[in-house]
Amino acid sequence: MISVVILGAGNVATHLFKAFNKAENIIVNQWFNRNLKSIDYYKNLVEVTDNLSNLKEADVYIIAVSDDAVAKVSAQLPFENKLVVHTSGSVGLYDLDKKLHRGVFYPLQTFSKEAEINFSNVPICIETASKEHFSILKLLAESIGSTSYRVNSDQRSSLHLAAVFVNNFTNHLYRIAHEITEATSTEFDILKPLILETANKVQTISPYMAQTGPAKRNDKKTIKKHLKKLEGSEHKAIYELLTKSIQKTHGGKKL
Amino acid sequence: MISVVILGAGNVATHLFKAFNKAENIIVNQWFNRNLKSIDYYKNLVEVTDNLSNLKEADVYIIAVSDDAVAKVSAQLPFENKLVVHTSGSVGLYDLDKKLHRGVFYPLQTFSKEAEINFSNVPICIETASKEHFSILKLLAESIGSTSYRVNSDQRSSLHLAAVFVNNFTNHLYRIAHEITEATSTEFDILKPLILETANKVQTISPYMAQTGPAKRNDKKTIKKHLKKLEGSEHKAIYELLTKSIQKTHGGKKL
Repeated sequence: MISVVILGAGNVATHLFKAFNKAENIIVNQWFNRNLKSIDYYKNLVEVTDNLSNLKEADVYIIAVSDDAVAKVSAQLPFENKLVVHTSGSVGLYDLDKKLHRGVFYPLQTFSKEAEINFSNVPICIETASKEHFSILKLLAESIGSTSYRVNSDQRSSLHLAAVFVNNFTNHLYRIAHEITEATSTEFDILKPLILETANKVQTISPYMAQTGPAKRNDKKTIKKHLKKLEGSEHKAIYELLTKSIQKTHGGKKL
Repeated sequence: MISVVILGAGNVATHLFKAFNKAENIIVNQWFNRNLKSIDYYKNLVEVTDNLSNLKEADVYIIAVSDDAVAKVSAQLPFENKLVVHTSGSVGLYDLDKKLHRGVFYPLQTFSKEAEINFSNVPICIETASKEHFSILKLLAESIGSTSYRVNSDQRSSLHLAAVFVNNFTNHLYRIAHEITEATSTEFDILKPLILETANKVQTISPYMAQTGPAKRNDKKTIKKHLKKLEGSEHKAIYELLTKSIQKTHGGKKL
């Protein structure tokens, strides 16, 4: 049995609480938040507190607060030499107070408040100074159905940056496509199967191998048509830059 | 029963043949290709020919050849006043020879040679001059399990452009993420569930609502970290441009 205390009440904290609460070999001893109202709803399932001096014993303390608050919360913990992890992709391991056994338990996924999360779709990137602490965090991840990966700080920061490309930037390309279709009163729904299939494809083949389209085949006629259609739009620069980048990657000629 | 003749032997032609051949109410009367070798494999299932003068009667002739060849093939057809469609997103309806009843039957999906295609995931965009021809093409699409959409030329060209954003450009962002993770020997696999979830999210909520990340929340600290990590890389310009574009869309401050 692994005992856990959760600190924070955002999306990650809440989804982790629900998953831990369901797992057979995890017990959530306590849930801390500065503002009790945010976690009041769960008080029949777990002891809640807004007082750091009252923190209970646990194998792992999980600080799931905003990036900027991690260091401060960890410095305020009224104990030392206990395993304390944060859940951020971009906060350093050593931003946690040095009196603690420090670790990172970074779920690499996009969380929304509403949607239920299936943790088997949430890889957890674990960083610790000692192997012993890695093992308990790995077990914690596996107990909620996640696959865990041991990463170092440099790898974690690469993943955080790469996630911006495959999540935030990709979503923005969807948004641009939405704007393009809306401009001619075309249903965005028509694009949804293509969006899914594009994501599906790279589950089994590399993005390099999966690349298709006018930029890759250096189809100047189509590129010219598209640029003409984007004339006067701020999306033209994005089209040009990504086309050039694809051509560079795939050895095609310049736009 | 709808009778069909297919012209061409690329991915789209081949996947359409397989789907038509399986459908109960479609009969493929003939399959034409300039080079018989490409379709020789199917000669026990369908009559094959390399001679346009020998084309059989059919309700619909489907020209699934490369964009540049559509006009030429249609001009060489030895008949008139029959329904002839092409399958391209970017070729004009009126690039088909005017002696014909012209139409477009554009499957908006990414096709690879190897992977089997389930046409229920392939929206088909139909363009015709007359309603009567629309109905038969709609029935053809539905007979292979596809959802069909009636679009005009302007809408079809919007979809073709938007598809470049959600398929080709998105895939290139995956490629960039792959390069970023490889640079620190990090497994690209860790990003795969996020890639899928990002695509899943916009199946039910709009890309505008789904947007998250440092650009949207104007998290300068994280953006600065990421730009520093990309220093000297050609991907920096893409990061900057997409970040600015997200900030513009979501009313944030400038990068």
